[in-house]
Amino acid sequence: MIKVAILGYGNIGRAAEEAIKAAPDMELAGIYHHNDCLDCIAGNIDVMLLCTPTREVPKFAAIMASKGICTVDSFDIHGQIWGLRSQMEPVCQTNRTASILSAGWDPGTDSMVRALLTAMAPKGLTYTNFGPGRSMGHTVAAKAIKGVKNALSMTIPLGTGIHRRMVYIELEDGADFKTVEANLLADDYFAHDETHVIQVESVDALNNVAHGVNLVRSGVSGETHNQRFEFNMEINNPALTGQVMVSCARAAVRMKERGEFGAKTMIELRPIDLLPGNTEQNIKALV
Amino acid sequence: MIKVAILGYGNIGRAAEEAIKAAPDMELAGIYHHNDCLDCIAGNIDVMLLCTPTREVPKFAAIMASKGICTVDSFDIHGQIWGLRSQMEPVCQTNRTASILSAGWDPGTDSMVRALLTAMAPKGLTYTNFGPGRSMGHTVAAKAIKGVKNALSMTIPLGTGIHRRMVYIELEDGADFKTVEANLLADDYFAHDETHVIQVESVDALNNVAHGVNLVRSGVSGETHNQRFEFNMEINNPALTGQVMVSCARAAVRMKERGEFGAKTMIELRPIDLLPGNTEQNIKALV
Repeated sequence: MIKVAILGYGNIGRAAEEAIKAAPDMELAGIYHHNDCLDCIAGNIDVMLLCTPTREVPKFAAIMASKGICTVDSFDIHGQIWGLRSQMEPVCQTNRTASILSAGWDPGTDSMVRALLTAMAPKGLTYTNFGPGRSMGHTVAAKAIKGVKNALSMTIPLGTGIHRRMVYIELEDGADFKTVEANLLADDYFAHDETHVIQVESVDALNNVAHGVNLVRSGVSGETHNQRFEFNMEINNPALTGQVMVSCARAAVRMKERGEFGAKTMIELRPIDLLPGNTEQNIKALV
Repeated sequence: MIKVAILGYGNIGRAAEEAIKAAPDMELAGIYHHNDCLDCIAGNIDVMLLCTPTREVPKFAAIMASKGICTVDSFDIHGQIWGLRSQMEPVCQTNRTASILSAGWDPGTDSMVRALLTAMAPKGLTYTNFGPGRSMGHTVAAKAIKGVKNALSMTIPLGTGIHRRMVYIELEDGADFKTVEANLLADDYFAHDETHVIQVESVDALNNVAHGVNLVRSGVSGETHNQRFEFNMEINNPALTGQVMVSCARAAVRMKERGEFGAKTMIELRPIDLLPGNTEQNIKALV
């Protein structure tokens, strides 16, 4: 059994716990909060799932890897993933362990689909359309506007990678809606997209962890144009993120066992390593 | 530059030639027919694409691998893939080379999607719906019926993995349609599916290499049900198959260079190995 522990117990941590318990080849090796993971010992834990806020991932990933413990995170700042990989690679090599970075659905499984579609039709355009679903980054940005008590920013796909922002806000007592709306629309998070601000009585009454993706590519295979591909999903967001992290925990352990040390993103993983069961079973069932 | 040669010059071989010429990191190292490939020399050829009829793949794969040349095939008899892999594995290990098996779209890229979706929602059902498009196996079976001069069997998806067969036939002079139809409907290839037989003046006038897939999964991530996924494509069949084989040629060479010898199916490949460019470029562009 693979011993998998969790660091951070929010939406993702709880979903990861459920996925560990549902996995036939894993056991839960503990749930840790912040710095109490400093007491972790390799041997008691094969893999630590880093379910912390994304900005804390680099620190804890390095701490765990330096103990020789595999890590899986869902670090989601696209522009900083290569930097994180560059930092983690030597730590993993030195400590003979494996870290899987940005293991969620985007970045993550969507990245694998984008890579696969590019291999199938090397020239062309891929558009990743998100939603409808809650954007964490935009929700935090909306909450930071003066006069906003609570907020929810929904991402609505308009096609070709263009998105509308539907921002639902509860106002603080005495705040003026028109002023808050103007400040929100001027914020750099919202200034470049079609954005609608709607005042509501209760943001909590709207909360829903549903999300979705519509990923399309039209491209060229060899000299043949108009090869068309589409990947859609409608999912519970934390449940999928937690599950993907747990599947990647299996891949991390297998890579470490084979002596493939280092920090990897999901496009660098073999799909079969994500699955329980042996090679023969999986090839017969899936190929 | 990766030196890629082609064995067999039918629809797939011609499409593969186009994909090799379009690849920034490859050069065409020759086009071979049947046994003239026995004169091939490793060094002049890094990878041989086996674009022969599928039943000839095992023979030529073993011959090429025994020379230390990487191979890629699109062997498509699902029930025999594990057996082919078991035969090729020791040949590749002994000769320190890599063979990629069943590199097409199904088996092939669809297999990678099925594996990925299973990792995202481990419990549930995946249905692969094919078409509309020509079934090679059913077309050959229809042509073998007495009184049939030429035939085309189209696969029509009805959902949940159930397919209709639309069989267009040209009759030989003097053949009786009703007799031919009855014999065809009784053939094991057609007896288990809804099948319609239609007499036409010219089968050639109907020919079209378009094909498609609608692959759906509804499953459970952790304890969360109703996670829904869908992969669709509408493609030129030989163009996609040739392109996938060429992308896999790149993966075979990289695996051999890393000392990862052996016979692999596509669910055992890293998506990034299918792509030209270096790791940093691909991670920044696709993750």
